[in-house]
Amino acid sequence: MGKEITSRIIIGGQNPIAVKNRAWTLMDILTDAGVFLESVCGGQGTCGKCKVRVLSGQVTDGQGNPAEPENDGSYLACRVYPLGQVVLADITQRGVTAKGEIGRIHISLEDRAPVLSKSVVRPTYPTLAQNYSLQEMISNVNELQSQEKQDLHITALRDMALLAQTKTESYTLIHLGDHVTAVEGGDTSSVLYGVAFDIGSTTVAGMLMDMNRGEAVAAAAETNPQSAYGADVISRIKAAEKPEGLKQLSDLIRHCLSTLIRRLCSISGIRVQDIYLVTVVGNSTMEHLLMGISPTSLTIPPYVQAFKSLSPFPPQELSLDIHPGGRVILIPNIASFVGADTTAAILAMDQDLTPKLTLLIDLGTNGEIVLGNRERMIVTSTAAGPAFEGAQLSCGMRATDGAIDDISIQEDVLIRTINAQKPAGICGSGIIKALAEMVRRGIITSSGRFAENSQMAQLSPELRSRIREKEGQREFVLAFAEESANGSDIVITQGDVRELQLVKSSICTGSQILMQTLGVNPEDIEQVFIAGAFGSFVDLDSALAIGLIPIQERNRIRSVGNAAGEGAAKALLSHKHIQRCQAIAEKAEFVELANHPQFQKSFINNLAFPKGGIT
Amino acid sequence: MGKEITSRIIIGGQNPIAVKNRAWTLMDILTDAGVFLESVCGGQGTCGKCKVRVLSGQVTDGQGNPAEPENDGSYLACRVYPLGQVVLADITQRGVTAKGEIGRIHISLEDRAPVLSKSVVRPTYPTLAQNYSLQEMISNVNELQSQEKQDLHITALRDMALLAQTKTESYTLIHLGDHVTAVEGGDTSSVLYGVAFDIGSTTVAGMLMDMNRGEAVAAAAETNPQSAYGADVISRIKAAEKPEGLKQLSDLIRHCLSTLIRRLCSISGIRVQDIYLVTVVGNSTMEHLLMGISPTSLTIPPYVQAFKSLSPFPPQELSLDIHPGGRVILIPNIASFVGADTTAAILAMDQDLTPKLTLLIDLGTNGEIVLGNRERMIVTSTAAGPAFEGAQLSCGMRATDGAIDDISIQEDVLIRTINAQKPAGICGSGIIKALAEMVRRGIITSSGRFAENSQMAQLSPELRSRIREKEGQREFVLAFAEESANGSDIVITQGDVRELQLVKSSICTGSQILMQTLGVNPEDIEQVFIAGAFGSFVDLDSALAIGLIPIQERNRIRSVGNAAGEGAAKALLSHKHIQRCQAIAEKAEFVELANHPQFQKSFINNLAFPKGGIT
Repeated sequence: MGKEITSRIIIGGQNPIAVKNRAWTLMDILTDAGVFLESVCGGQGTCGKCKVRVLSGQVTDGQGNPAEPENDGSYLACRVYPLGQVVLADITQRGVTAKGEIGRIHISLEDRAPVLSKSVVRPTYPTLAQNYSLQEMISNVNELQSQEKQDLHITALRDMALLAQTKTESYTLIHLGDHVTAVEGGDTSSVLYGVAFDIGSTTVAGMLMDMNRGEAVAAAAETNPQSAYGADVISRIKAAEKPEGLKQLSDLIRHCLSTLIRRLCSISGIRVQDIYLVTVVGNSTMEHLLMGISPTSLTIPPYVQAFKSLSPFPPQELSLDIHPGGRVILIPNIASFVGADTTAAILAMDQDLTPKLTLLIDLGTNGEIVLGNRERMIVTSTAAGPAFEGAQLSCGMRATDGAIDDISIQEDVLIRTINAQKPAGICGSGIIKALAEMVRRGIITSSGRFAENSQMAQLSPELRSRIREKEGQREFVLAFAEESANGSDIVITQGDVRELQLVKSSICTGSQILMQTLGVNPEDIEQVFIAGAFGSFVDLDSALAIGLIPIQERNRIRSVGNAAGEGAAKALLSHKHIQRCQAIAEKAEFVELANHPQFQKSFINNLAFPKGGIT
Repeated sequence: MGKEITSRIIIGGQNPIAVKNRAWTLMDILTDAGVFLESVCGGQGTCGKCKVRVLSGQVTDGQGNPAEPENDGSYLACRVYPLGQVVLADITQRGVTAKGEIGRIHISLEDRAPVLSKSVVRPTYPTLAQNYSLQEMISNVNELQSQEKQDLHITALRDMALLAQTKTESYTLIHLGDHVTAVEGGDTSSVLYGVAFDIGSTTVAGMLMDMNRGEAVAAAAETNPQSAYGADVISRIKAAEKPEGLKQLSDLIRHCLSTLIRRLCSISGIRVQDIYLVTVVGNSTMEHLLMGISPTSLTIPPYVQAFKSLSPFPPQELSLDIHPGGRVILIPNIASFVGADTTAAILAMDQDLTPKLTLLIDLGTNGEIVLGNRERMIVTSTAAGPAFEGAQLSCGMRATDGAIDDISIQEDVLIRTINAQKPAGICGSGIIKALAEMVRRGIITSSGRFAENSQMAQLSPELRSRIREKEGQREFVLAFAEESANGSDIVITQGDVRELQLVKSSICTGSQILMQTLGVNPEDIEQVFIAGAFGSFVDLDSALAIGLIPIQERNRIRSVGNAAGEGAAKALLSHKHIQRCQAIAEKAEFVELANHPQFQKSFINNLAFPKGGIT
């Protein structure tokens, strides 16, 4: 362990990190210095996530022996100890920046005015003759600029009192309206990051934004850890009936957000204290649980939410480890069953600004549908179940490495997986494509049943070998055990098809009822947006093929990806966007599907797939 | 320990307390139930503060034997265990309620409108047809009443979401302006307590007020635990230069406030969560340290304070265990050396309202002097040292049990002590009286020196036996070792007299310089208030006799006790008083004594006592 040598660590071109404690692993040292490596096993040496490359210097096993490298020449930071000076390859370049997905966020320059902003001031320091407090010193200089008296918060005063001892010439103020929440010495205005969170029942996604440049920097996602209490929101609301359950669910999601923040910082090489603003979208239950506010009344008639909208609040409220003078903004909810994710999707698609009659369908754990334009918007929610997010299907999975996201059925099955990894399951966009292909090739009939063997005689032997019966239920093999990541067949079962029929009928029926409510016909709808947080974009031809959308005009329909997440990111960048969100939540009218006289009949009609056949 | 018997404790007429854990002492059980007994030794059985009287039932020693009672028949709660049902005498009657001191606070009815108030509402619960959030439900009902949109805080929403599950008919809202900080079920409007704190450098005093009735309920005081870092503020500011020192000093005073809150609750039988508002007065350093804001710039020219005034903030900021929806209000400071205690004293005496030219002298660790009326007020601070609070004198002590607070010197010395306990030392009011008597009898000459033996021939033998020389310094014995509480003589030394001369000259000189600054003469002053937090009221004849006040008209002078503490209590009871405090802090003009051309000369002149002699 090199007891006689003072160690230090150098990463890329950065300042060296002095080693404070010789009993610390490389991972301990990096974590202490604010460089967060991914780790799932908690430093047990089993997950392999904390690999680092040693460019020069030596690492040991802690017993004085040189450490054994991994097969690829790297070392697990949690298992090795530095000996003297060790230079590591730049860790911050290592992560997945998900540029492909995040590159789509683009906010026009004039809209870039975040709720929390920075300004640089050069105040006049008090003298014996002209004596005033530091609070007044800042208020004065700022009054001149903004014509408004500034309220310095306690955190800002703590910063100021320390900075004033060196009589720093210029200060950077962090503003929230006419409040100053923090003060930094010198000009730090170039550093202003924010994180937009999309808390789905199944998946929690975070996007790190440079709020100065209006650009996404990194993205990361995690399974919502509340899933341990059940995939659906109802079982979680049930669990939150007891105070300790509420606390546990609240702590779980808060911890998940903290983990994502650290990961985003690790990926992009910024410090957690460089993050000043966090926006959160999620359905009403997710927002209630996050805030530690009982969601029980959401499930009991008359289905009441505790709040629609909250004022921006300090990160300490959620134990989020961002800048202590930063703020968290919850995007407002529309109704008990139509949450902030829908508000944000409307914002992202500018549905509240457009004169065009627009249908927005957001496919998540639930399916939310919005019909309208800047004049009027009506919304509903379908209890679709989390099928499109990979849950409740025999081989469903989140849209991560190895998820099948595209399928083509010709002589045999061709699959594409995310990041070209061995297939491990099927994600939302893959499921829609697979269904469409199976219907097109006649493997499934329009009623949703697997075709009889006699009906499939014209299929290739390869395809026929993929259709089989198991435990009294027919299924179709997308990938056999020998080619899959986990050594099991990846299949779509008759049960899966039934599940998906319920979902697609809910969506289709919901859209129809909204049209009836507004008194419009499908041909009146000028644009349709299909949104979904499931990673890849929905293949629209497939969505039309399975009858998900009750519109025929293909050219009016666009697949827009994770609109809710995009809306959260947009909200981060401008206070005008947050005001729009509040107006949307006030304005959008909720329509209850279950009580609609037309619902039952339409729902049954829409279960069938449009007539397919062998092409 | 009575393993077979379910124990319970009954106190006075209150509900029984079930015993949850048989290994708990009576003290553990009471503490767990929110009944706080005083304890200094932390349950070691040594301080004797936690005595309880057992009216019926039996207590054991924890080994199965009946516990041994104390001499007075009581038991130490920290040493005994209940056996079966035990009825205790009412503990809440036990404490010192200091009614004498607190009875003076009287606020006129029309002024009683605390910053934090309660209102009872009967909202209309949402229905399926008319659906809105609980937040809107409260905002709506309240909008009707106050014409203002109410902002429900997160804590209030947490309360609401739980209360709504039982569809409580009426709710009590806790308001801070147009914010609702908490919600309670039913009508709790009769419960609204507050605590006013006066944080002196030497003593911290708390007064529990019933904000509904505008009445003081209990008072308690503690030595400021920061004294461990030095009696004066300068050494504490020095200690707070390091971040860990600042944290330590901050934690000490916060913990002291928490202790006083628990004691006040224990004395008066109310729960800590019944306290909704806390006001704090103190000098600027005390307020900076309390907030964890570095006070360093207060001591470095140009002597700058970080803040004058703070918005009301949640108790969590100071880890105060009052109602979580409550608020803390710091009374604003006037200048770096004239703190909120002076602001509060001006409020208490209505100096900001009166047309009469008023001189207010507040004798604390420092001496603050205010001259003026509603038109204009000028203030100054004298570095008097904490002599009047008992520090820096050989036998000085706080105004608690056993402190000599009155003295008469005739043939021999007659002393009065607080609560008629054995004398343990001398407190501020006692010191002023003792000095005056010693000057009057010629024991001290007008120059401040002890008289020569030849000059004291006419004194009685008893008095002469009290004057002696010890370690080259003359001293006067107020109480001999055999009659004192700690077995040592209680004396006033030549050094003590010199110390007190410095203090009284500072005060007198400061008053004169303020008069010069305002261009007024002593006879123009229509009223003089002598305030001081040292327990008993100052004897004005003595104060005049030692030349503390440069005014001759005895009938214009009043001794007003702890005006700062009284101001803090007044501020608790009305938002108008808090607005007045803000106006006072803005308006009062600070005058620096040290640089005044007249100061040095006047100070030396004023060191002498007015001519006394044997009467």
